[in-house]
Amino acid sequence: MGFEGADPGTVRPGGRTARVRASVLQAAGDALAEHGFAHLDLADIARRAEVGKTTVYRRWGTVTGLVADLLLDMAEQSLPRTETGSLLGDLTANARLVQRTLADPRQGALFKAVIAAATCEAKTAEALHRFYDIRVTEWAPCVQQAIDRGEVPEGTDVHEVIRAVSAPLYYRLLTSSDRLDEAAADQAAEAAAAAAHAGAYLRDDEGRA
Amino acid sequence: MGFEGADPGTVRPGGRTARVRASVLQAAGDALAEHGFAHLDLADIARRAEVGKTTVYRRWGTVTGLVADLLLDMAEQSLPRTETGSLLGDLTANARLVQRTLADPRQGALFKAVIAAATCEAKTAEALHRFYDIRVTEWAPCVQQAIDRGEVPEGTDVHEVIRAVSAPLYYRLLTSSDRLDEAAADQAAEAAAAAAHAGAYLRDDEGRA
Repeated sequence: MGFEGADPGTVRPGGRTARVRASVLQAAGDALAEHGFAHLDLADIARRAEVGKTTVYRRWGTVTGLVADLLLDMAEQSLPRTETGSLLGDLTANARLVQRTLADPRQGALFKAVIAAATCEAKTAEALHRFYDIRVTEWAPCVQQAIDRGEVPEGTDVHEVIRAVSAPLYYRLLTSSDRLDEAAADQAAEAAAAAAHAGAYLRDDEGRA
Repeated sequence: MGFEGADPGTVRPGGRTARVRASVLQAAGDALAEHGFAHLDLADIARRAEVGKTTVYRRWGTVTGLVADLLLDMAEQSLPRTETGSLLGDLTANARLVQRTLADPRQGALFKAVIAAATCEAKTAEALHRFYDIRVTEWAPCVQQAIDRGEVPEGTDVHEVIRAVSAPLYYRLLTSSDRLDEAAADQAAEAAAAAAHAGAYLRDDEGRA
């Protein structure tokens, strides 16, 4: 399973350079998921990827550079949003995609590892923030469509509604041992849709009380 | 400032043992906030705390044991909940407490560090989960009171409403560079209250659709 659900077995375009990148990023993701960020080592990743150590050092330089490129790749490989015709339907599709990703043993561990890495290193944090910006921007139009349909008020912060869907799922992943199941996803979507409908995400400049 | 807002300068009870614990936990918190989890070292903490190294090793054994005790102390030092008479008022008080804690440079860094540590170590994760369980349990009665007043439906999962207040604040802290300001706190409280009012946190066994 790819990041936030890229198709399994997707064939990537490109020649040798692209294949090397794909192997190294796969190995880096495996290493992060297995051992976390603290034990990441470029030489070990080169070995796992069956790629020359000097190639890895020359191209990525540092562990931080490699993790940043992995996050860029995760964003590039992410699935486009689903359109269902209703805000609750769209947010539920988004919530289930995030939930399936985080509940997957490899990807859940990988996301924990990159979030942990981002707490230690500014460059990793920047790359992580960019990843979430890209994902939020991909899904935000579904909230604009809901505004256009009159489901939620004009002046709603469309990005904040999308973030509200993910937030409880990440919070559960990081601060509890509760299962990240489909019911949690559906509840996150339902809560975000209800709060948006009630005007809780109106931007301040729109005169929110 | 203490954890989730204990009074500054609070005098702790107890004799020498309690004073040693207070010094060591303070030093551990400082070290975590400054350098993150990866560089935590018992000898360094003993030096900072001006406590003998053997005392620290004998009492806490490992960095993991010390972080677990720090989290227990953070829960013990946390402020009791505020009662305002309305769900939105209570949730706003809770959200602002969490926001002030996470926006504080030392405490924000400390929370990031313990969350990162919990992704690597099962025992730290357990201690972190316990910390949040204690905080959620402290605030949950305000949702029960809202049920009793008829503000939110019977069968609402009171713990989940409290978690919903914190989730967007932690998500913002960990996945974005956006400022954690009071407006973010108020929005988190408003969204949780609106969603609770709409029945989004009804427990499954209450026949939620």
